Amino acid sequence: MESKRRYVNQLVPGETLDQVFLVRDRDLRTTKSGGLYISCTLADRTGMLPARLWNATEAIFNSIQTDGFLHVKGRTEDYKGNMQLIIDACRPFAADKVDLGEFIAVSEFDVEAMWEELLDILREIKDKHIRLLIKKFIEDRELVAAVKKSPAAMQMHHPFVGGLVEHTLNVARCAKVLLPIYPSLNADLVLMGIFLHDLGKSAELSAGTAINYTDRGQLVGHITMAAIWVQQKAAQVAEETGEPFPQKTIDLLQHIILSHHGVYEYGSPKLPAIPEAYIIHYLDNLDAKMYMTTHAIQADPDGESSFTSYIRALETRVYKGSGQL
Amino acid sequence: MESKRRYVNQLVPGETLDQVFLVRDRDLRTTKSGGLYISCTLADRTGMLPARLWNATEAIFNSIQTDGFLHVKGRTEDYKGNMQLIIDACRPFAADKVDLGEFIAVSEFDVEAMWEELLDILREIKDKHIRLLIKKFIEDRELVAAVKKSPAAMQMHHPFVGGLVEHTLNVARCAKVLLPIYPSLNADLVLMGIFLHDLGKSAELSAGTAINYTDRGQLVGHITMAAIWVQQKAAQVAEETGEPFPQKTIDLLQHIILSHHGVYEYGSPKLPAIPEAYIIHYLDNLDAKMYMTTHAIQADPDGESSFTSYIRALETRVYKGSGQL
Amino acid sequence: MESKRRYVNQLVPGETLDQVFLVRDRDLRTTKSGGLYISCTLADRTGMLPARLWNATEAIFNSIQTDGFLHVKGRTEDYKGNMQLIIDACRPFAADKVDLGEFIAVSEFDVEAMWEELLDILREIKDKHIRLLIKKFIEDRELVAAVKKSPAAMQMHHPFVGGLVEHTLNVARCAKVLLPIYPSLNADLVLMGIFLHDLGKSAELSAGTAINYTDRGQLVGHITMAAIWVQQKAAQVAEETGEPFPQKTIDLLQHIILSHHGVYEYGSPKLPAIPEAYIIHYLDNLDAKMYMTTHAIQADPDGESSFTSYIRALETRVYKGSGQL
Amino acid sequence: MESKRRYVNQLVPGETLDQVFLVRDRDLRTTKSGGLYISCTLADRTGMLPARLWNATEAIFNSIQTDGFLHVKGRTEDYKGNMQLIIDACRPFAADKVDLGEFIAVSEFDVEAMWEELLDILREIKDKHIRLLIKKFIEDRELVAAVKKSPAAMQMHHPFVGGLVEHTLNVARCAKVLLPIYPSLNADLVLMGIFLHDLGKSAELSAGTAINYTDRGQLVGHITMAAIWVQQKAAQVAEETGEPFPQKTIDLLQHIILSHHGVYEYGSPKLPAIPEAYIIHYLDNLDAKMYMTTHAIQADPDGESSFTSYIRALETRVYKGSGQL
Amino acid sequence: MESKRRYVNQLVPGETLDQVFLVRDRDLRTTKSGGLYISCTLADRTGMLPARLWNATEAIFNSIQTDGFLHVKGRTEDYKGNMQLIIDACRPFAADKVDLGEFIAVSEFDVEAMWEELLDILREIKDKHIRLLIKKFIEDRELVAAVKKSPAAMQMHHPFVGGLVEHTLNVARCAKVLLPIYPSLNADLVLMGIFLHDLGKSAELSAGTAINYTDRGQLVGHITMAAIWVQQKAAQVAEETGEPFPQKTIDLLQHIILSHHGVYEYGSPKLPAIPEAYIIHYLDNLDAKMYMTTHAIQADPDGESSFTSYIRALETRVYKGSGQL
Amino acid sequence: MESKRRYVNQLVPGETLDQVFLVRDRDLRTTKSGGLYISCTLADRTGMLPARLWNATEAIFNSIQTDGFLHVKGRTEDYKGNMQLIIDACRPFAADKVDLGEFIAVSEFDVEAMWEELLDILREIKDKHIRLLIKKFIEDRELVAAVKKSPAAMQMHHPFVGGLVEHTLNVARCAKVLLPIYPSLNADLVLMGIFLHDLGKSAELSAGTAINYTDRGQLVGHITMAAIWVQQKAAQVAEETGEPFPQKTIDLLQHIILSHHGVYEYGSPKLPAIPEAYIIHYLDNLDAKMYMTTHAIQADPDGESSFTSYIRALETRVYKGSGQL
Repeated sequence: MESKRRYVNQLVPGETLDQVFLVRDRDLRTTKSGGLYISCTLADRTGMLPARLWNATEAIFNSIQTDGFLHVKGRTEDYKGNMQLIIDACRPFAADKVDLGEFIAVSEFDVEAMWEELLDILREIKDKHIRLLIKKFIEDRELVAAVKKSPAAMQMHHPFVGGLVEHTLNVARCAKVLLPIYPSLNADLVLMGIFLHDLGKSAELSAGTAINYTDRGQLVGHITMAAIWVQQKAAQVAEETGEPFPQKTIDLLQHIILSHHGVYEYGSPKLPAIPEAYIIHYLDNLDAKMYMTTHAIQADPDGESSFTSYIRALETRVYKGSGQL
Repeated sequence: MESKRRYVNQLVPGETLDQVFLVRDRDLRTTKSGGLYISCTLADRTGMLPARLWNATEAIFNSIQTDGFLHVKGRTEDYKGNMQLIIDACRPFAADKVDLGEFIAVSEFDVEAMWEELLDILREIKDKHIRLLIKKFIEDRELVAAVKKSPAAMQMHHPFVGGLVEHTLNVARCAKVLLPIYPSLNADLVLMGIFLHDLGKSAELSAGTAINYTDRGQLVGHITMAAIWVQQKAAQVAEETGEPFPQKTIDLLQHIILSHHGVYEYGSPKLPAIPEAYIIHYLDNLDAKMYMTTHAIQADPDGESSFTSYIRALETRVYKGSGQL
Repeated sequence: MESKRRYVNQLVPGETLDQVFLVRDRDLRTTKSGGLYISCTLADRTGMLPARLWNATEAIFNSIQTDGFLHVKGRTEDYKGNMQLIIDACRPFAADKVDLGEFIAVSEFDVEAMWEELLDILREIKDKHIRLLIKKFIEDRELVAAVKKSPAAMQMHHPFVGGLVEHTLNVARCAKVLLPIYPSLNADLVLMGIFLHDLGKSAELSAGTAINYTDRGQLVGHITMAAIWVQQKAAQVAEETGEPFPQKTIDLLQHIILSHHGVYEYGSPKLPAIPEAYIIHYLDNLDAKMYMTTHAIQADPDGESSFTSYIRALETRVYKGSGQL
Repeated sequence: MESKRRYVNQLVPGETLDQVFLVRDRDLRTTKSGGLYISCTLADRTGMLPARLWNATEAIFNSIQTDGFLHVKGRTEDYKGNMQLIIDACRPFAADKVDLGEFIAVSEFDVEAMWEELLDILREIKDKHIRLLIKKFIEDRELVAAVKKSPAAMQMHHPFVGGLVEHTLNVARCAKVLLPIYPSLNADLVLMGIFLHDLGKSAELSAGTAINYTDRGQLVGHITMAAIWVQQKAAQVAEETGEPFPQKTIDLLQHIILSHHGVYEYGSPKLPAIPEAYIIHYLDNLDAKMYMTTHAIQADPDGESSFTSYIRALETRVYKGSGQL
Repeated sequence: MESKRRYVNQLVPGETLDQVFLVRDRDLRTTKSGGLYISCTLADRTGMLPARLWNATEAIFNSIQTDGFLHVKGRTEDYKGNMQLIIDACRPFAADKVDLGEFIAVSEFDVEAMWEELLDILREIKDKHIRLLIKKFIEDRELVAAVKKSPAAMQMHHPFVGGLVEHTLNVARCAKVLLPIYPSLNADLVLMGIFLHDLGKSAELSAGTAINYTDRGQLVGHITMAAIWVQQKAAQVAEETGEPFPQKTIDLLQHIILSHHGVYEYGSPKLPAIPEAYIIHYLDNLDAKMYMTTHAIQADPDGESSFTSYIRALETRVYKGSGQL
Repeated sequence: MESKRRYVNQLVPGETLDQVFLVRDRDLRTTKSGGLYISCTLADRTGMLPARLWNATEAIFNSIQTDGFLHVKGRTEDYKGNMQLIIDACRPFAADKVDLGEFIAVSEFDVEAMWEELLDILREIKDKHIRLLIKKFIEDRELVAAVKKSPAAMQMHHPFVGGLVEHTLNVARCAKVLLPIYPSLNADLVLMGIFLHDLGKSAELSAGTAINYTDRGQLVGHITMAAIWVQQKAAQVAEETGEPFPQKTIDLLQHIILSHHGVYEYGSPKLPAIPEAYIIHYLDNLDAKMYMTTHAIQADPDGESSFTSYIRALETRVYKGSGQL
């Protein structure tokens, strides 16, 4: 089934399918003539697909489990402008036989390789205390594991497993090549600030078969969480070295985290007040917008229009043809 | 000098003065005819007063020290709508002989008594972990000392020594009488939230003869600092008790601190999402506005107008006559 | 049927029902196979429920009257995430046999008792003219009757019969206990201002089986209407007493009414310019937010999530677990 | 002195003056060498002029009265970019000998003639009740007298005696010629709405030698005051005719008054919801902007620049040369 | 069929239809019992109508072409508050036999006559260069043809063939009668500015059977396009006359175009800085709002309510009864 | 005088000066005792310095010419917190003997070298039509000369001769190194867009001894001017090559120019709708903020404070110590 899989975002009306889906939800309903039918939502990593099975029985219904896998035979059709699947036959499929990567969105790049490249860039940092601080973060296995799995955002950009590392690496790559152009910047602060700026996302969002906010994510948020981590890891460094961690370094790293959204309206309790905070703010935004625009172009379902549909976060539709003049 | 002192905010043009002032700054200047004169700023706890001493000498100038005290004889006059003092004679005055309370603005209430009343109200809290958390805060002598000295804000409300305690107590008193009206609220969260909401002001502002922001105050801010303190004190409680401090309690207390400004525009990274955060937000604002309006009425210099001058923070002038119909 | 009634907001899919509903609307439609079916909306005081009756006839359709009552037997099911009812049988039900309280939302408290408590609080007012003014309002039987029936808002808070009195009483209770904490406030203005602040809602909204805006409510609004009433009632007092009603008292009461929304954006033509206007603004908001948050928690249909769904008026989801640590 | 008068807005440095001014304020001060001098502000209807009299005596000072008139001989000079007058000699001047028109800004048009033209336009109204309502307004001599004296605004547009009538007439003239272009509009509502829209300014502002807000003007505002007047005058009509004044007409006229600022931010508690309210909103704005731009061009003191200085209310500088291509 | 045509906005449930429609889209779908049905959207110039044809065949489906015409027999019914049509029989209809005016919205006025009246008004312009500039625009046949077909906006106002000319003429008529009231305005700039202000709409929007943005319309916009045209046509004039076109005239005409939306938020890169720009801004808005309100009243489907439904662009519902007191 | 010059921004009170200044303005005034003195403003490229010359004569006054150079001997002093110079003696100085670079602010980098580096980067562009377009711009000697002299802004960033080239080059350098990180971007559009984005500044601002807006700059603005230039140069290319310039390329380049301010509020009539527009928007902002923050730190006069004064454009004070941890 592997190479032949038809992903949800590739489907067109009129296809005949014979493959496995993840079940998101299911309902047993009465038809107008008194019979039973099943309405359910199937999914893979590229999207969701409403489906119907006519002439259902309770037995069939019970064999379909929410969050379980289902082998389906059926046919796609257009229903009020949306795709739906008419299921002809189905049977449960064992979770240990599926390739999870087909069902959960993950970065198209290797997370471990990206993580190593990110650490490589951080090795350019010279400040002793910041290097010790990084060490504390990296030694926190639980944190690192969560970071590697974390998306960069719920929906806006890089919303997939490994997205946080991919986004952070992109921003770090940008900073690395821009720092020679702005030599008066404190490169150590810039690089460490980039490492930290969205790190809290790993605890704000819980990534499994779906991305959700954690309670603490909604009540406290990734910005404050990362600022607290800096305080905690710096205390560990101080304890280990036996000398106080420089307060100014803590203040500036926390300032960068707090101000990186750039404006109050987006949840930054402080506005950037050092050049290093500004460059991180702009590169963070730049990478997010590069994802959002290029992703919108790739994902746009309507081949005939030269613009994507309206994208609320950009307050515009995106023109799809700038790649080729 | 005690009872006879004329405070800066009481002065009218044409008074003859013979008393001590705090020197804020001083300048030696050339008159148009080539002579020397001294321009300086004198102050007490109620305000600042520009002053001139004609026919000055370098010796007189050197006897006047910035941040020192000066015994002055002279006469007030109106200069372009502002009061100024023409100094006839002056001599340095020993700092240890002055009553500091005349020169630094302090709460009109006894700080220790207000602190005790605040702790009394906190004793109504029943949650074991929050009680342990309060204990950690109260045992932090350095913090408590800073809190007792701290103003509640730079300028907006309660900008004087003891202002933070006065404001916090007012809000706690309000909550205490309102809680029976809203019995579904978690009283423990409300009272502890009030205790914490502005606590970071004690580290955001440095209060001496003048109120200023600390570096950390500007870079990180009182909201994030207080959220970090909750994390640290809760860790101390956990260490002491040997059992984890409930995460949910930490989340909710930090949420209350983070959201108490109510809107992003005023530096809250989170909006209130529990009823307890809302009541603290409104009572905090209410007490600030009660101070600002009644203080504006008392401080208004223009006896004939029925309105104060325009107050930017309120976006209006305040009507002075609502007290009596 | 009384105690056994299943209210709309209690229903889950799969229930069998045998009880009376209020009919909101009804449609006779053609099925795909050419038969007839009825689509209608049933309601009680807690919400609305879409319903279907298959194999309908014109006779059945004619027996179902919009705004009439209908005895229904049927079964609930989930349809695309929303509940709907499949009607097996139905017959009209006489309006004089139903308990109207089951179908129209009313305050859970006794309106007359709340009104008496409100008047009790107003009796603390000492100003002679304001007392005469209250008398004129209370003697206006038509107005008082409308006030007692009025909700406090269309949807946002206390949207039910008696809601205006319940909300006004809550705010008055709060003011009563806070006034001793802010003794410089003019208590008479505060209490009378609270009585008046939303009084115009009784003419802005028409409350029957549904809450709607009146024409005058939409064109003129409750704020201006209440300001006009003050003018009219004061003129009646003046006529009765033969001496002019103090202009300043009229000005200040109208100012409190006009400014109680606190910002222009919410329809206040004036910003609060006296402390008494500020406290009313904050207590009004406080009570509304207490209702909105606690109501959102109680009404949230999704038992598994720790947050309610997004509430536009609060710009956030509400955390449901702050009541218990 | 009449035709030779040099008005304040015509003066250039280096002029010798010998004429009467209105005294706004005065101060007796000590020079650095111990002598006395007088600092005062002189004015005519075109502006204010700071002035100095060196080598003053108490006798001279006492002969200069605030709000009195003063015959002055002296010379203008530039002082830090502003004009000031060095007084060589002065003597009090009897108020009954001056032409008040030189000292208080008045409309350049005849107020009585403008008022008559305005009433002429109102005579086109056909609705019986609105005609009776106008009659009640016109019979209110005190109100009409205040209206004729009133400016249209504090500073923004037509800030002079007769300004309210001039502005209202301009808007009425515009409406008169536009109504045939939009025949579906209710012309009676439009014309009466224009008459009423700023009528409250006559009670919001007190116009004497200077324009100020009244207490009621600041606390309640011209919008609500005019809405109340409509209610009162309509009640008088009803009493006189013995039949109720149509509620709908009251609602719509009040709606027009309440909504004529067009947005909440400018103090309208309601947004325009009928076409008649929209046309009044735009014509009101149009006439104000025509005044502001053409007045800014005429008043601009800097002959060399092609733009006026920045005008905050317009958020721009105004280009002075559009009159001639 | 001509006079008997029932337009979409006239239909009520339960009508039997026998007439031609334009087909917007079509779908072939499976019923729950395995049969086929067609879901399509029919349209005329007044709106769209969803339709169903049960018991369909592939042959019937293929006879229905998107953007083709279809003769339909069927019956209307209400489906969830919206009208739909149940098709009993249908057959394709030749495009050359239909009256296109029934299917594409056009101005109710004669476009050629409106264009002539507009040119008549422009003949009042005296400035030689502006007259030459107009000539260049009018000689551009392609442009003029596009202008005559163009709507004035996508949806907001005058969204039909000829709408741009109708709107521009209305604004010109208003200016013509207002100019005598404001004689200091440069009438040539006002009239030419009105001609130009929305001219770019003819290239921003592509009007056929539906109004859409062109690529250049979305990327560059009508404001900048019209500013460029002024530059190009002025260059043609200069070339023809052999003398430079006055720069100032170009600057002012472009300024009027750029600033006519009045605020940055609506896409004006410059704010009005001359009185002529202000009057055009207000008259443009006035005419748009006159259309929007009167059209909303006419189009409102709900005869019983005294208000239209909420209109987002006006931020309010419109009261329908102001025409008659 | 060269190496010994004391620049205005280096001066402290009490210095004795003997050097040349540029005269900005001058006044002859009367002292209180009847004598004459001169008040004037001296300047060099780093700022302005108020100066006084006591015991003046008309002859001395006439020897001082606005916009001329003056050799001055005198002494600096502090006057109300600002520096001023007391002139003891002065004489005119010939303009051809001064080093103009001391008096007019210029880029610290070589403008020609920067221009060459910018052209070098543009040579990476591959698109034939864009290359031809660049050629047309570069061949426009008048334009290129104006560009090389132009500042990048009035005050905000790079406000000096050569500032436009310096800023444009910085942005181009950034893009050059970032393009490999975002390979899907159209590099030709990005590089050409950067070249064009602020090019209009060269006609919006007139740079001489002071930076001012031109009339066309204020009325039309640099954004629209550059869009027009693209149209004109593309027409020249088309004429030269005999084939039409691709419309899409024009649209996209104009779109980038129009949208580069990123939000309507800053004068962009279009929001970015292609990824290339986004990267230019962010890099433009980044370079401006890098200048503003590092310049604010360097220019801050107060050595003791760790923060600069409040910077309105950044809505914050800037922390000066991030360079060193």
